[in-house]
Amino acid sequence: MHFARVIGTVVCTEKVPAWKGQRLLLVQPCDSAGKPSAARPLVALDSVSAAPGQLVFYVRGREASTILANPENPADAAIVGLVDDVREAPGAMR
Amino acid sequence: MHFARVIGTVVCTEKVPAWKGQRLLLVQPCDSAGKPSAARPLVALDSVSAAPGQLVFYVRGREASTILANPENPADAAIVGLVDDVREAPGAMR
Amino acid sequence: MHFARVIGTVVCTEKVPAWKGQRLLLVQPCDSAGKPSAARPLVALDSVSAAPGQLVFYVRGREASTILANPENPADAAIVGLVDDVREAPGAMR
Amino acid sequence: MHFARVIGTVVCTEKVPAWKGQRLLLVQPCDSAGKPSAARPLVALDSVSAAPGQLVFYVRGREASTILANPENPADAAIVGLVDDVREAPGAMR
Amino acid sequence: MHFARVIGTVVCTEKVPAWKGQRLLLVQPCDSAGKPSAARPLVALDSVSAAPGQLVFYVRGREASTILANPENPADAAIVGLVDDVREAPGAMR
Repeated sequence: MHFARVIGTVVCTEKVPAWKGQRLLLVQPCDSAGKPSAARPLVALDSVSAAPGQLVFYVRGREASTILANPENPADAAIVGLVDDVREAPGAMR
Repeated sequence: MHFARVIGTVVCTEKVPAWKGQRLLLVQPCDSAGKPSAARPLVALDSVSAAPGQLVFYVRGREASTILANPENPADAAIVGLVDDVREAPGAMR
Repeated sequence: MHFARVIGTVVCTEKVPAWKGQRLLLVQPCDSAGKPSAARPLVALDSVSAAPGQLVFYVRGREASTILANPENPADAAIVGLVDDVREAPGAMR
Repeated sequence: MHFARVIGTVVCTEKVPAWKGQRLLLVQPCDSAGKPSAARPLVALDSVSAAPGQLVFYVRGREASTILANPENPADAAIVGLVDDVREAPGAMR
Repeated sequence: MHFARVIGTVVCTEKVPAWKGQRLLLVQPCDSAGKPSAARPLVALDSVSAAPGQLVFYVRGREASTILANPENPADAAIVGLVDDVREAPGAMR
């Protein structure tokens, strides 16, 4: 799972039927401190009612589709948690 | 999910049986404003009747195959929505 | 799906049982005009009787395994179509 | 599977229901000797009670979800082993 | 599928139950002639009794898990064939 910040919403009236009523958010990948990474923003399904500006973590790939009741949908990115805190272990990487 | 613009169509008479009658479009990955990214164009199944020039978003990976009635087909990219609008939240990334 | 050109065949007597009798081809990723890309050649299952020199398109990932009757096999790349023609829409990317 | 070192823990009260009670660890990808690679840290489910500082290996993609009793969960990274030793074969790569 | 050379073995007593008794090998990605590529070594399940120094090809992603009797295991890389010969077609890439 990767960190990202919610930076916007995507409006699309024409989309696959499996996503009717689902929110699609624009997220910017970032590090654990919220600093944007070089990766481009992407569109993710929202499963935790994330709001613009919040630090979240998301999954990529088919596993994203499992957040909907019917996993036979084409999601390849989904927000799966709101980050409260990241506790780095001092010296772990020495 | 990622943004792309439809830039052409692919004609192939010899293809896997599961895709008979399906449209295959050539898309150029781009950002939310339609600016082409460094990624190469790719071929995607079309599920929303996209037309050349339109801004769409697409999925990558096995989840792409779920847009057909029989998900046991080898699609690894599919267009899943026409983008009407992207509303970026001002200041979200500060 | 991505474009590639068939550049060789791979011979291996010892392989997973699910692939007995299947052809394994060496393909070089390229663009829609057949120009080789920077990506390295890879090995793909063949589902359309592709011949060396032909322009094909292939899928990557688990979806590649669906071209065999029993999808519980470990293929992660498969040729799924012979490219007849790519029609780019003039001006689509302006 | 790839090597990583555990460098912290992630606290999130709001997350997908399938992960209730699961530990989420922050890991830094590294090589077989524990030297950090250029890849960014990521968040992984823990299946082997790894502790900060330990050398582990992890999987990426939907297969990560299979470490939970119900594989219909959105995990895309999971720690699947504690590394005791890596024995490189001298001269294998000559 | 990609080429690699076996360069070592990985010893881990603590690992996911689904892999009990399975060999884990360290492999270095390479090209069809055995020349190491820039990609980092990775850990792969072995399904063909590969030995250090041998040229093999491997799969990445969830499809790797299908080499075990129970595909609900978290493998994301597996060796699936020993390479006997690669026959490149002269002039195919002109």
